[in-house]
Amino acid sequence: MQSIIYDVAVSVDGFIAGPGGDISGFAREGEVVEAYMARLVAYACAIMGRATYEFGHRFDLTPGQNPYPSMRTLVFSDSLDLPPDRQVELVRGDGRDVLAALRQMSSGPIYLCGGGRFAGSLLARGEIDRLRLKRAPILLRGGTPLFAGAGSAPRLTCEVSRVFEGGYAYQEYAVRHPG
Amino acid sequence: MQSIIYDVAVSVDGFIAGPGGDISGFAREGEVVEAYMARLVAYACAIMGRATYEFGHRFDLTPGQNPYPSMRTLVFSDSLDLPPDRQVELVRGDGRDVLAALRQMSSGPIYLCGGGRFAGSLLARGEIDRLRLKRAPILLRGGTPLFAGAGSAPRLTCEVSRVFEGGYAYQEYAVRHPG
Repeated sequence: MQSIIYDVAVSVDGFIAGPGGDISGFAREGEVVEAYMARLVAYACAIMGRATYEFGHRFDLTPGQNPYPSMRTLVFSDSLDLPPDRQVELVRGDGRDVLAALRQMSSGPIYLCGGGRFAGSLLARGEIDRLRLKRAPILLRGGTPLFAGAGSAPRLTCEVSRVFEGGYAYQEYAVRHPG
Repeated sequence: MQSIIYDVAVSVDGFIAGPGGDISGFAREGEVVEAYMARLVAYACAIMGRATYEFGHRFDLTPGQNPYPSMRTLVFSDSLDLPPDRQVELVRGDGRDVLAALRQMSSGPIYLCGGGRFAGSLLARGEIDRLRLKRAPILLRGGTPLFAGAGSAPRLTCEVSRVFEGGYAYQEYAVRHPG
């Protein structure tokens, strides 16, 4: 069984993007980015919601293109349409069966790359096993929260904590789902 | 000139209290609490908004009582009424002049102990100089945000970062207000 790992940069006040989707405050280079790139190699699959996938279009991602070509990438959305020659898989409905199969079949951990709503719904369903949080030294005051929506608030166990240059704090938490 | 320091425990997702003001997930003892108690000694004044002051009533604070007897304590509220023999000072209006005088006169740093709305308005006005954040290994999914309301999002410089037993991460940030 492979884990689902939410690996994301987050502001001091808990947002993964600011108002209007602004991510300009997050680091694009340096130690924290190098460590993230090193982690990326180990993920076998990437999963995300529609908003995160479409966010890539701001950075020249074309519809259907795989933002993580080294991985099998699945986009969970009931409304997104992508061309037939797409390089990502489109998952309709709640995706429970797909995720269960992915955990069984994947050759490595599953990278949940975003975002707020999709991550919130997965957390509420007990589907997130681990958080890898790059805590940026910025405040955003609004935008996309780490987890959107209401739902369960599982306990966490902090298993890794380190400091990167540029004032980034990195924490890795195991999610302890009740029951 | 004394600094105004927001010294507060915060969840991984950026809340200082959960829905209904629930703070039961935060540590009440251990290293992180001992370090906080040690810091408290150095503060000369405590400032807070109405919600934070009234929150103390859940813990047997009586109206007018000073929750931090070792400090001069000011509560900023236009609507709160307290008995004449109160041990705290009540500040009406935006309190700019009072804060300016306090910065000049205080014998030590000023402890902003809460909470969301009051802290948000002070941040927007460029009145917060430093954050001392005890990052608890919990998710709250809602409740009182670290900073409520919209407003400026100043850059931060992380100056201290350490790890406490129990999975707490502690970060201290200097707030760099534009201009």
